[in-house]
Amino acid sequence: MEKTHADHGTRVVTDLTFEKAVEKVTEALGSEGFGVLTKIDVQATLKEKLDAEFRRYVILGACNPSLAFQALNAEIEVGLLLPCNVIVYEQNGGSVVAIVDAISMLGVIDNPELVPIASEAKARLDRVIETMQGRG
Amino acid sequence: MEKTHADHGTRVVTDLTFEKAVEKVTEALGSEGFGVLTKIDVQATLKEKLDAEFRRYVILGACNPSLAFQALNAEIEVGLLLPCNVIVYEQNGGSVVAIVDAISMLGVIDNPELVPIASEAKARLDRVIETMQGRG
Repeated sequence: MEKTHADHGTRVVTDLTFEKAVEKVTEALGSEGFGVLTKIDVQATLKEKLDAEFRRYVILGACNPSLAFQALNAEIEVGLLLPCNVIVYEQNGGSVVAIVDAISMLGVIDNPELVPIASEAKARLDRVIETMQGRG
Repeated sequence: MEKTHADHGTRVVTDLTFEKAVEKVTEALGSEGFGVLTKIDVQATLKEKLDAEFRRYVILGACNPSLAFQALNAEIEVGLLLPCNVIVYEQNGGSVVAIVDAISMLGVIDNPELVPIASEAKARLDRVIETMQGRG
């Protein structure tokens, strides 16, 4: 049974195929100034390392360089929380896209200078989710 | 001025050069079953994207496949928190290595099934820090 937790990110369930969802979210991230710096193919990694079967699943590491630079200048160790993770996985013939909540991540680092930067990141990532919902 | 926050990770200040510290922590992670899946050269990325100057700084995405597989089976969206970030950056001619606290990250996802898995990850990553401190 799948569990969902609205507290750790924003998610959208789509009818898009996995490949289409990855493509569309990558484009939407680009429109908000986020490049994809890293891409982990979870299915392929689990197969390679453990010979385990898993659904199609990707972890994209999205980064807005300008916001990241501001954050690093405010707090050198913010790299522990970067980049912003975006996941896409297959579900019931469609796919799910979820993005980490930049504000709740900040609970991990107690530095008030990061709050406005994380708020800006969250506003942009919320618009990415809206785009995926067809409302963007 | 650099700020440090003991609440978001475990860190060690070393006399090692940046390159040596990256090499040693990668080895120590391997001894605990963590491979490095992603590597972001923060200095090069900021230079390329913003033409900004920054100290040498790397974000390593470390993953123990067996623990990750357990975590994904307990909670499909745990990929929002994977892989475990390890940062290395230059400081005063030496370097600092810091690792995210797997337990405090779990504050972001409220699923009790993840607690023992995160505890195991944390125990292993604490040993990596001990190795970097020369006590491993």
